[in-house]
Amino acid sequence: MRILDFRSDTVTRPSPAMRRAMAEAEVGDDVYREDPTVNRLEALAAEMLGFERAVYMPSGTMTNQVALLVHTRRGQEVILTEGAHVYEFEPGAMANLSGASPRFVPSPYGVPDPEEVRRAVHTSPHQAPTGLIALENTHNTAGGTVVPLEVQRAVQAVARAAGLPVHLDGARLFNAAVALGVEGREVAAGFDTVSICLSKGLGAPVGSLLLGPAELEGEIRRYRKMLGGGMRQAGVLAAAGLIALTEGPKALARDHALARELAEGLVRLGLDVDLKSVQTNMVFARVEDAPGFAARLREAGVLINALGPERVRFVAHRDLPDEAAAEALARIAPLLG
Amino acid sequence: MRILDFRSDTVTRPSPAMRRAMAEAEVGDDVYREDPTVNRLEALAAEMLGFERAVYMPSGTMTNQVALLVHTRRGQEVILTEGAHVYEFEPGAMANLSGASPRFVPSPYGVPDPEEVRRAVHTSPHQAPTGLIALENTHNTAGGTVVPLEVQRAVQAVARAAGLPVHLDGARLFNAAVALGVEGREVAAGFDTVSICLSKGLGAPVGSLLLGPAELEGEIRRYRKMLGGGMRQAGVLAAAGLIALTEGPKALARDHALARELAEGLVRLGLDVDLKSVQTNMVFARVEDAPGFAARLREAGVLINALGPERVRFVAHRDLPDEAAAEALARIAPLLG
Amino acid sequence: MRILDFRSDTVTRPSPAMRRAMAEAEVGDDVYREDPTVNRLEALAAEMLGFERAVYMPSGTMTNQVALLVHTRRGQEVILTEGAHVYEFEPGAMANLSGASPRFVPSPYGVPDPEEVRRAVHTSPHQAPTGLIALENTHNTAGGTVVPLEVQRAVQAVARAAGLPVHLDGARLFNAAVALGVEGREVAAGFDTVSICLSKGLGAPVGSLLLGPAELEGEIRRYRKMLGGGMRQAGVLAAAGLIALTEGPKALARDHALARELAEGLVRLGLDVDLKSVQTNMVFARVEDAPGFAARLREAGVLINALGPERVRFVAHRDLPDEAAAEALARIAPLLG
Amino acid sequence: MRILDFRSDTVTRPSPAMRRAMAEAEVGDDVYREDPTVNRLEALAAEMLGFERAVYMPSGTMTNQVALLVHTRRGQEVILTEGAHVYEFEPGAMANLSGASPRFVPSPYGVPDPEEVRRAVHTSPHQAPTGLIALENTHNTAGGTVVPLEVQRAVQAVARAAGLPVHLDGARLFNAAVALGVEGREVAAGFDTVSICLSKGLGAPVGSLLLGPAELEGEIRRYRKMLGGGMRQAGVLAAAGLIALTEGPKALARDHALARELAEGLVRLGLDVDLKSVQTNMVFARVEDAPGFAARLREAGVLINALGPERVRFVAHRDLPDEAAAEALARIAPLLG
Repeated sequence: MRILDFRSDTVTRPSPAMRRAMAEAEVGDDVYREDPTVNRLEALAAEMLGFERAVYMPSGTMTNQVALLVHTRRGQEVILTEGAHVYEFEPGAMANLSGASPRFVPSPYGVPDPEEVRRAVHTSPHQAPTGLIALENTHNTAGGTVVPLEVQRAVQAVARAAGLPVHLDGARLFNAAVALGVEGREVAAGFDTVSICLSKGLGAPVGSLLLGPAELEGEIRRYRKMLGGGMRQAGVLAAAGLIALTEGPKALARDHALARELAEGLVRLGLDVDLKSVQTNMVFARVEDAPGFAARLREAGVLINALGPERVRFVAHRDLPDEAAAEALARIAPLLG
Repeated sequence: MRILDFRSDTVTRPSPAMRRAMAEAEVGDDVYREDPTVNRLEALAAEMLGFERAVYMPSGTMTNQVALLVHTRRGQEVILTEGAHVYEFEPGAMANLSGASPRFVPSPYGVPDPEEVRRAVHTSPHQAPTGLIALENTHNTAGGTVVPLEVQRAVQAVARAAGLPVHLDGARLFNAAVALGVEGREVAAGFDTVSICLSKGLGAPVGSLLLGPAELEGEIRRYRKMLGGGMRQAGVLAAAGLIALTEGPKALARDHALARELAEGLVRLGLDVDLKSVQTNMVFARVEDAPGFAARLREAGVLINALGPERVRFVAHRDLPDEAAAEALARIAPLLG
Repeated sequence: MRILDFRSDTVTRPSPAMRRAMAEAEVGDDVYREDPTVNRLEALAAEMLGFERAVYMPSGTMTNQVALLVHTRRGQEVILTEGAHVYEFEPGAMANLSGASPRFVPSPYGVPDPEEVRRAVHTSPHQAPTGLIALENTHNTAGGTVVPLEVQRAVQAVARAAGLPVHLDGARLFNAAVALGVEGREVAAGFDTVSICLSKGLGAPVGSLLLGPAELEGEIRRYRKMLGGGMRQAGVLAAAGLIALTEGPKALARDHALARELAEGLVRLGLDVDLKSVQTNMVFARVEDAPGFAARLREAGVLINALGPERVRFVAHRDLPDEAAAEALARIAPLLG
Repeated sequence: MRILDFRSDTVTRPSPAMRRAMAEAEVGDDVYREDPTVNRLEALAAEMLGFERAVYMPSGTMTNQVALLVHTRRGQEVILTEGAHVYEFEPGAMANLSGASPRFVPSPYGVPDPEEVRRAVHTSPHQAPTGLIALENTHNTAGGTVVPLEVQRAVQAVARAAGLPVHLDGARLFNAAVALGVEGREVAAGFDTVSICLSKGLGAPVGSLLLGPAELEGEIRRYRKMLGGGMRQAGVLAAAGLIALTEGPKALARDHALARELAEGLVRLGLDVDLKSVQTNMVFARVEDAPGFAARLREAGVLINALGPERVRFVAHRDLPDEAAAEALARIAPLLG
């Protein structure tokens, strides 16, 4: 029985083309800015997404945390959506690295009300001043949901009016673009910085990029080095990243369809799935005992993650075959009897 | 027209007896542990509240933040009630000083469900580990509400089961004790550390105490010094603190009655006051334009604080005369016409 | 036998006039900026020393650390003299509160070569950027030595050329002024911020002030609150501080003479004292076993501090009688037999 | 004219064998601990160097900083050699990430006197307590010098006596081993944690390892994630790392000979090189204008780094041909006329 690994789109393995590119990559010392492949990847990403600069880093956690370091000062608050990855899954980083506190706004389906964002901006001297507003698109813990472009623009307007920078955690920005039927650059528009991830649905083995204006590049590179993200001949990874960036987005529509098929099947099997939240490549189901449910599926060769005590997540990705949803449903059905 | 200052119980001024005690205080260098008056205050507070040690500090913010420094490690989470003072009004301190992140549990009237606290304890390696659980009694932003002793005990049991320390922000611990009809030591029981404040309803000009076990005293004093809380001849303040600690609690019942009288009067005047939340010396009212409302009352000689755009707070305290509620209501009534 | 306490000028006790002033002080809630005595003290200090603003705090550690928080950004370096108080005796604060690293320049007698300061300024992207230059006058661990005004001006010129702020730890600024025969404001001139201490040789029980420009006042008050330095009716302390600030400096010349007399006597007794370093109210002697030496003197009723394994410090101050040096020498002589 | 790149051993490019291994590497998601190649590399490194565990990270800065995070608590001091990489070239990281301060001991040729280390351990409550002692072997800024094993053992004894952990920055540990004529594990013996780097003289494109006991593994992985060092299919890099770890050390003796040849030649040319410091693969020369000197050599096709205003560094490594020293000397000679 073959394993169907729905745990995350991070499990994707490099394609033969990526491996070839890595083996043949032209490299140099990137800490000296001399790795031609890294330089090419950074230039391409910046150009594709409409930014002056892009800086390559080993993970999405690092790109987000460097953005927080660049934008905030000690003791400020960062306005976040509920369940934001930057708070939930970058463990304790924001407080320990930046000395910044989260300020949450309600965000059903990952989408905040811009008016709530405005109200969350602090100016009283008795409270911590706001230093940054951050969105996440697609929004992971909300279900891989899409933040509409008009909401992004309204939040950006709030930020501008308050003289605040605004960051996008775009680890799955291309999933949002595909769902919205727009180019990636439209999702990235209007933010001061955006982080994107090459190693999730796009398929690269390792690597993320922080996009921003030229004036922040020096600080971005300094904080990357402080966190230990200065890699030497990183071109071997960047070579795969170039393929992920140019070819990866094309495959995402298939992943979304797979997730949809799976979600509808799970509902038919009686599982508690909010179909309204199934907008890209993720399916969350509410179950009584999430770890136990995941363990039973594991025995049937279906791997998923428990997120919390009563929630499981299925993620569709490029390494799953077209028939993965049907096959998974066939294996799950008997377990629910 | 005399001013009625309902802004906070922090506005209380030292009594003649306190001033006399300050003028006559025997003092020494407290950084060398040689101030006899500070030593007497610390010993008395520890004894009264059932702890091995108490350490004197210039503010309640410092006692809370030192507790966080002592209990947590970098990058951990602190489980807090919604609206906790330690997060809302100690601006950015927890993240910047301790590198710790807040994890909120729902807490209607300042009272969390212990089962929710248990669920908020993190053990997954992908999330920030929990380092501390903290309660606040009375709970300021919830209305000066009282956390029942059985809830405290249930949360302490959750902490013990998880091997976690548990701290009480008891800035108004004696208000809770009076409302519950118990001694202060009963409210303080079962916590690893408790901070109490002498300069709020108890009437001292300056000063708070952090209570804890002997084994933490060295770390508590080290972090107090790091934050700049090492004062020299602090006995001049401690002399007033001794009076506040021994005499202050007796006057709180009057303050609670005053708040009650005021709250009921405000309701009669048509204001939106949740009487269920009026449990000690505070009254919160929901109004359309909080700063505007506070400004109008100021012109009538009634001082209150706007907390947020649509919320105002009245606080009763020892410097207000017995007839303060009646007089304030008489001045407010014409403004609501 | 009366005790002669040469441990520190921090042991000075409030005078009867100070106690009277404290008992009669007009007070208010300083967190709301309503304590008239604190306001008067801040205004007077600013005016006397030539600054736009002064902010009152409970300790010299806090005034220095708030200056570091205001001037630096995460991960920067602060250029310091060797043995700077801000590094040696504010335990771990700079790194933990500001995330800043020390960069030391050689400083014989507490006086750095401005050219060395210039060379210590970092601009390479591979190193931590310089965020602040700080001097200390008088310089405690160098012997209570005085930094000449022309050195201060040369270091300020280096800072301005590099676009950097420059801070003075002036805990004993008035000792420097007396030794230099100038007004305090001349020692404070040219710095962005200066901290002064009222509770050392000036005799107040508690209190320090951070002097700076109006544009930094908001940040200074915010960080004071974050560290727990927001006190309520602090006017009771400020009342003593006003006397310390106006009357205290007049008494320092006597303390300097006392230290000189003591130092010369110790040399006659054969002790290793560098007379060149005895410039104000301190005398350091090098001995074989500092803690043992201090213990023997304690039995003779002479209290001193061991600073390190082979160094002891005598400090002259206002609470010592005029004959304290002669009396101490008479008691020490037989111990050296 | 071919370029002779003596700037650093970090400029080494992956060998054809490494590229092949990368292209064929078996990979998985390392954040889930499922990358078999990373697992193999970690197991091999731990076994080779005598530790229970090794954790793979993207840089030597990260392995050192994670060690600091694991060993220290907020506000402690780390005893370091003068010029330690962890302070000089991991820009501001120690203070910002760990809240820890450096405490330097004199260290001629990178070698501290263990007695000085003992004296630097703090226990006074007025100073920051010591949290960790760290050595660096070989010591980069001292000239690539070797710390003798008996010095390491004496410092480890000081640490044990004081109840302190001791860390080795072994970025070039194998250079030390080759110079000492011992196995790598002998250089690593007796430390609580050791970091080694695969991407310097050993030739891997990217990657370092932190070695330590099993009981610290959880914390090490948590802090790696916090800093953004959790990479996904990192096996593509680890495959090259395996070759670097097993084959790399064999080539270092040649590099050392090359450095020696170059150093002696430079002395013959009249340059100020301290031959006593030329112990492994580095040569430092003192010149009047380091950036200018480096610029002139660059025009002759010889790349070197200026480290400070009057110091340049040549580093020998595997990508330089055997005749590199002779050729470089021939090009430099005419420039010195």
